[in-house]
Amino acid sequence: MRYLSAGESHGKGMVMILEGFPSNVKIDIGEINHELGRRQKGYGRGKRMSIETDSAEVLSGIRFGQTLGSPISVFVKNRDWENWKLNMSCENIFHDEGLSIRSPRPGHADFPGAIKYNQTDMRNILERASARETVIRTAAGALSKQLLKEFGIVVHNRVVSIGGVEDLDVMDKDDSYWEKVKASDVSMYDPETEKKVKQSIDKAKEDGDTLGGIVEVYIYNCPVGLGSHVHYDRKLSAKLAMEIMSLQAVKGFEIGAGFETAIKPGSQIHDEIYYQDSYHHKTNNAGGIEGGISNGETIMFRAAVKPIPTLMKPLQTVDMESKERVAACKERSDVCAVPAAGVIMENIAAWVIASELIEKFGGDSLEELKTNYNNYMTYLGER
Amino acid sequence: MRYLSAGESHGKGMVMILEGFPSNVKIDIGEINHELGRRQKGYGRGKRMSIETDSAEVLSGIRFGQTLGSPISVFVKNRDWENWKLNMSCENIFHDEGLSIRSPRPGHADFPGAIKYNQTDMRNILERASARETVIRTAAGALSKQLLKEFGIVVHNRVVSIGGVEDLDVMDKDDSYWEKVKASDVSMYDPETEKKVKQSIDKAKEDGDTLGGIVEVYIYNCPVGLGSHVHYDRKLSAKLAMEIMSLQAVKGFEIGAGFETAIKPGSQIHDEIYYQDSYHHKTNNAGGIEGGISNGETIMFRAAVKPIPTLMKPLQTVDMESKERVAACKERSDVCAVPAAGVIMENIAAWVIASELIEKFGGDSLEELKTNYNNYMTYLGER
Amino acid sequence: MRYLSAGESHGKGMVMILEGFPSNVKIDIGEINHELGRRQKGYGRGKRMSIETDSAEVLSGIRFGQTLGSPISVFVKNRDWENWKLNMSCENIFHDEGLSIRSPRPGHADFPGAIKYNQTDMRNILERASARETVIRTAAGALSKQLLKEFGIVVHNRVVSIGGVEDLDVMDKDDSYWEKVKASDVSMYDPETEKKVKQSIDKAKEDGDTLGGIVEVYIYNCPVGLGSHVHYDRKLSAKLAMEIMSLQAVKGFEIGAGFETAIKPGSQIHDEIYYQDSYHHKTNNAGGIEGGISNGETIMFRAAVKPIPTLMKPLQTVDMESKERVAACKERSDVCAVPAAGVIMENIAAWVIASELIEKFGGDSLEELKTNYNNYMTYLGER
Amino acid sequence: MRYLSAGESHGKGMVMILEGFPSNVKIDIGEINHELGRRQKGYGRGKRMSIETDSAEVLSGIRFGQTLGSPISVFVKNRDWENWKLNMSCENIFHDEGLSIRSPRPGHADFPGAIKYNQTDMRNILERASARETVIRTAAGALSKQLLKEFGIVVHNRVVSIGGVEDLDVMDKDDSYWEKVKASDVSMYDPETEKKVKQSIDKAKEDGDTLGGIVEVYIYNCPVGLGSHVHYDRKLSAKLAMEIMSLQAVKGFEIGAGFETAIKPGSQIHDEIYYQDSYHHKTNNAGGIEGGISNGETIMFRAAVKPIPTLMKPLQTVDMESKERVAACKERSDVCAVPAAGVIMENIAAWVIASELIEKFGGDSLEELKTNYNNYMTYLGER
Repeated sequence: MRYLSAGESHGKGMVMILEGFPSNVKIDIGEINHELGRRQKGYGRGKRMSIETDSAEVLSGIRFGQTLGSPISVFVKNRDWENWKLNMSCENIFHDEGLSIRSPRPGHADFPGAIKYNQTDMRNILERASARETVIRTAAGALSKQLLKEFGIVVHNRVVSIGGVEDLDVMDKDDSYWEKVKASDVSMYDPETEKKVKQSIDKAKEDGDTLGGIVEVYIYNCPVGLGSHVHYDRKLSAKLAMEIMSLQAVKGFEIGAGFETAIKPGSQIHDEIYYQDSYHHKTNNAGGIEGGISNGETIMFRAAVKPIPTLMKPLQTVDMESKERVAACKERSDVCAVPAAGVIMENIAAWVIASELIEKFGGDSLEELKTNYNNYMTYLGER
Repeated sequence: MRYLSAGESHGKGMVMILEGFPSNVKIDIGEINHELGRRQKGYGRGKRMSIETDSAEVLSGIRFGQTLGSPISVFVKNRDWENWKLNMSCENIFHDEGLSIRSPRPGHADFPGAIKYNQTDMRNILERASARETVIRTAAGALSKQLLKEFGIVVHNRVVSIGGVEDLDVMDKDDSYWEKVKASDVSMYDPETEKKVKQSIDKAKEDGDTLGGIVEVYIYNCPVGLGSHVHYDRKLSAKLAMEIMSLQAVKGFEIGAGFETAIKPGSQIHDEIYYQDSYHHKTNNAGGIEGGISNGETIMFRAAVKPIPTLMKPLQTVDMESKERVAACKERSDVCAVPAAGVIMENIAAWVIASELIEKFGGDSLEELKTNYNNYMTYLGER
Repeated sequence: MRYLSAGESHGKGMVMILEGFPSNVKIDIGEINHELGRRQKGYGRGKRMSIETDSAEVLSGIRFGQTLGSPISVFVKNRDWENWKLNMSCENIFHDEGLSIRSPRPGHADFPGAIKYNQTDMRNILERASARETVIRTAAGALSKQLLKEFGIVVHNRVVSIGGVEDLDVMDKDDSYWEKVKASDVSMYDPETEKKVKQSIDKAKEDGDTLGGIVEVYIYNCPVGLGSHVHYDRKLSAKLAMEIMSLQAVKGFEIGAGFETAIKPGSQIHDEIYYQDSYHHKTNNAGGIEGGISNGETIMFRAAVKPIPTLMKPLQTVDMESKERVAACKERSDVCAVPAAGVIMENIAAWVIASELIEKFGGDSLEELKTNYNNYMTYLGER
Repeated sequence: MRYLSAGESHGKGMVMILEGFPSNVKIDIGEINHELGRRQKGYGRGKRMSIETDSAEVLSGIRFGQTLGSPISVFVKNRDWENWKLNMSCENIFHDEGLSIRSPRPGHADFPGAIKYNQTDMRNILERASARETVIRTAAGALSKQLLKEFGIVVHNRVVSIGGVEDLDVMDKDDSYWEKVKASDVSMYDPETEKKVKQSIDKAKEDGDTLGGIVEVYIYNCPVGLGSHVHYDRKLSAKLAMEIMSLQAVKGFEIGAGFETAIKPGSQIHDEIYYQDSYHHKTNNAGGIEGGISNGETIMFRAAVKPIPTLMKPLQTVDMESKERVAACKERSDVCAVPAAGVIMENIAAWVIASELIEKFGGDSLEELKTNYNNYMTYLGER
């Protein structure tokens, strides 16, 4: 499987083409929209989120509610296009040069992007670098989830902390746990922490500041054997890292015990192997991946999301024409997007696992994929 | 640029084919061997490291000390092959089934690999999953470094901590700093910390235990504009993450301020932009990459290395034939490989940057690449 | 550069995402539509061609008439969608099973596609396998042509023969030659041949039959050095072959003297090398490519297009449900699509050359690409 | 599956790394050597072929005669290395500039390669561009054949013509047919034609000339469903074209009736579909591929091989230093390599089919691949 994404933040819309999805998978477009909706929520989002209410239009690849095996393309319209159609026109119309943005915002792609692509109007960079692009990554994940569901594979995320305020951790994360987390608009479990976090967000808003945080993703029921140790670029951990670190604002990634493994001795880190009816482990410091291969335990990774770089109390930068010192412009007004980042990571994880599933089990139709999968499960039971 | 690596740990040797390297780059094989040698050193390594003394044999792609533009292949012989040639024979000779390893070692690829590839002898997995493979990643980096040198790009690494004992950090890491770090056999700057770390390693050895740690890599003089924001899989941060997270034992990765960005507010994290003769920043929390593109500052990332999973006081596992509980076998005897991991990461980073350089600047010969690079530098000076 | 295409023939439309196109290239959407229009013309096309009058809508990647460096996405609407929206609905609406096509048409993807993707309605295969998809390949080429124009690289095609009736060949194909060919609705030069060919097409139509033919493509002003001999998958000839042989109905491909080289001895085939002011050849049996690398001469290849497999006097096939012998259905009514195939091949060739240009010369903006290109041209002049 | 090849013609040897081959496939190295031997034979080969007697050394990926799933690397030594080790030294030793070749040979990569890679000694190009590289393509095929054998898939080749002299064609090519062809040292069936062809070769030799020809490859028992119509770069025909057109000296490629389809009307070209116990066709003008997908019939393609460009009565060229007109040098002395090209194409075809098999059926071990394959065959029987 592979996909390409396209689209500028205030352009006509975002576009995805996903190639390699098996045929005969039932697709509920409502579920794609549900994921797009989850992506837009979370305490601390600005005004634009309410304008948008994203809705996916499938342009190809699905007929009568089932995939055809042909490329699936999805368009997510910019609902605010009417207000932008002149300033984002693809035609060479007369345009007001005064609207162009001459100063790059710290923490964004603006400066290196303007140099790389030889642009003087930062808008020509920021429109594409915008996290608006994650509607596509979410859509790809929402399709993947509908495939994974057929194999009982489920992905969840929780926000571990925002601005340093940490949620209570709970050992057994059962369905009721995840329901609570999903219901929270900071994706946390503990109502007390949630309250504190919201106060932090409100405070940051008052200060014209922004907050980052940490997200954890859990992939349940992933079979043993996805990824491979035989070549470094086939390691499941490496693929997850690539995909998650490419998400806007992510500056750190760890699997299982992650950075803690750098402190504790080997005797306390590695997960002993047991057999009773089936192979299993009693600890999961590996986060479900050993030697770059899924080992049958829950896959768990964690990522650090930096604060949104556009501040209402703006940072200082340089006008690239005059070279004068100026305040950065304020394109967007979110204070905290960590819960949204969690939803997106969940969907990215679904995409990675679905891709690996198809690579390992082959099969062009859902029926073939399932037959192959079930045979492997039978074999696994016999080992 | 692309490369494939091959080879089992106790097989004939390790093999690399690297395709896409420009022509007319001067290659000193001594420098490859120098990097291979650095990879073998470090306090806490076991006996095998002294047997090996790796030496690269170039099989193709270089003539009279210069690259030809054709694929460069390198062979690194297993100096202990004589002792292994029966047990690792590629021919279908009669072999003692009793020598096969039936129980997977915790923390290794053994268990998921044996399931995935349908093996009963763990040796068929562990030989390839072994960190011995990093001789190839180091060789690829050692070639890349010789290209980067032509552009003044230099990569260094330091060990931040081992088993939780942290080195002193120094703000200005100048040449003398890096000389000291290179001279240390734990890749640390402060002699006092080094002493403490060695004691920890000695203690772990006594306990039959192992230690992990944290490594930092610095890439100096990288031009603005490597990587891209236009598509997620082209982000430099994502590529570095993929490459580093695919290194054996790495469980965490962060760029710049990394996980700290999840705690501090935006006003304290983002690096303001200045202009005086040229664009620059006074802080570098971004670690030299914004929007997935290098921004002209030093690129800095950090990775967590877990303790070596093979313990002299072995962990418990399962015999996959009898399903009985047994102690894991002890293939190798290192206590700590963090300094080696640092050398390898340094070389991986060199590979990534060299690849990106070639992608951005094109050019099939060093002369063409340099001309293109210099023109870009002139343009950059004029922005 | 890379692109993905999506879309079913009678679905909402065709979609393209093209990634890696440099910034600051002026794009005239009229020129894309011009190529799409050329693709629809040609003597022997059926009714649908007149309904369609394709028109490209750029969804992203272009602002104020210039590329941004971000992915370019294009949508080409199906103008007949209103009539198909129920039968091609992506929603799981109630649908008339009687409309499904149970018998695969000979010469199409229907049979192997239905088996591979586990489909019983041939429409689920034929909609994607349809040559309607070539609007995307044409659009990709039309964008590429606007880049190539900046470097003076021009691509033309001529129809060599239809149904065995061959056009006169002319040695010096100058601008006036190509104007005549472009003006002909069978893409031929000689009016007499054109007349005969049209009679053949009329005759075939009367017979309920179809005709194929041969197309020649010429790429002028391509610099020495595109493609590479160093690895087989980098050969320019191989890339052209892949791209052209993947076009619907193409069953043969040859470069330069092609199959004739299998007959004549070496002394009559290989093109001697001359120098006068610059390197050149007086013959071009190589078709502009030696060792997989462009050699500075006009690149010329030829492809065989089979007759359209849907015949008005249909071939026999099998109902895959009843296994009974039935006549194939008639989805489309063109008699000859060879001139259209020529237009598409021309555009495919433009895409391949543009891709190779970017790979060799790097550069993220048109300005950078041109600087690099010009430096190489200077170097070439000095060799 | 993927592989990289490396090695210069007169360097130490040729190297291959093949990644993605399933585990537990029995590999007989004798069979690899058998294919390498076949590649060296054929009437019309020069002296070097007898020196060589190539022999593959497996460096990794195989243990006790079975694949491990890890990358398979193979080294084929240059038996004449002792005579070349100074002139092809990878070290920067003192070397006689007088030995360098200043004039590019017509029909080779020499000229465009020297420009592209900025070389003045043609040896730096010709060593890699040499057809010596086909030992690797043959080795990759020889491994693939051992996988295909497990599925009953068999590949054969025949030489259709040399220098225009055509072999008799036989409708039913059974085992005895192929035995005869394999026994012939021009890979032809008819002894009379063989005699004539040898006379042509002898004559060409006397004349200091060379001869090309046409080769046909047959792939038997390939299942329905390899390749795909859903995206152009997934078409089996396109992949075969890419792989075959990248073989040195190949200038033309056609599938099934190929260029003949450009002449005959549709009613005589397309293969009607029948069902009796299973789906089949009574003609095979499609050459076993429809819509880019294998349709269950024998896959057949044909390729044109140009005469060897190095003539004993050399062509004229230019000294790139003095710009003077000179005779091309004579690196090699074969008169005709068409039978060898046939053997290589056969092996390339095996590689392509094995790759597609793994892509469609997934599976990391031979056992898993077979189970998946058999299930598909059962499904196919039920359609």
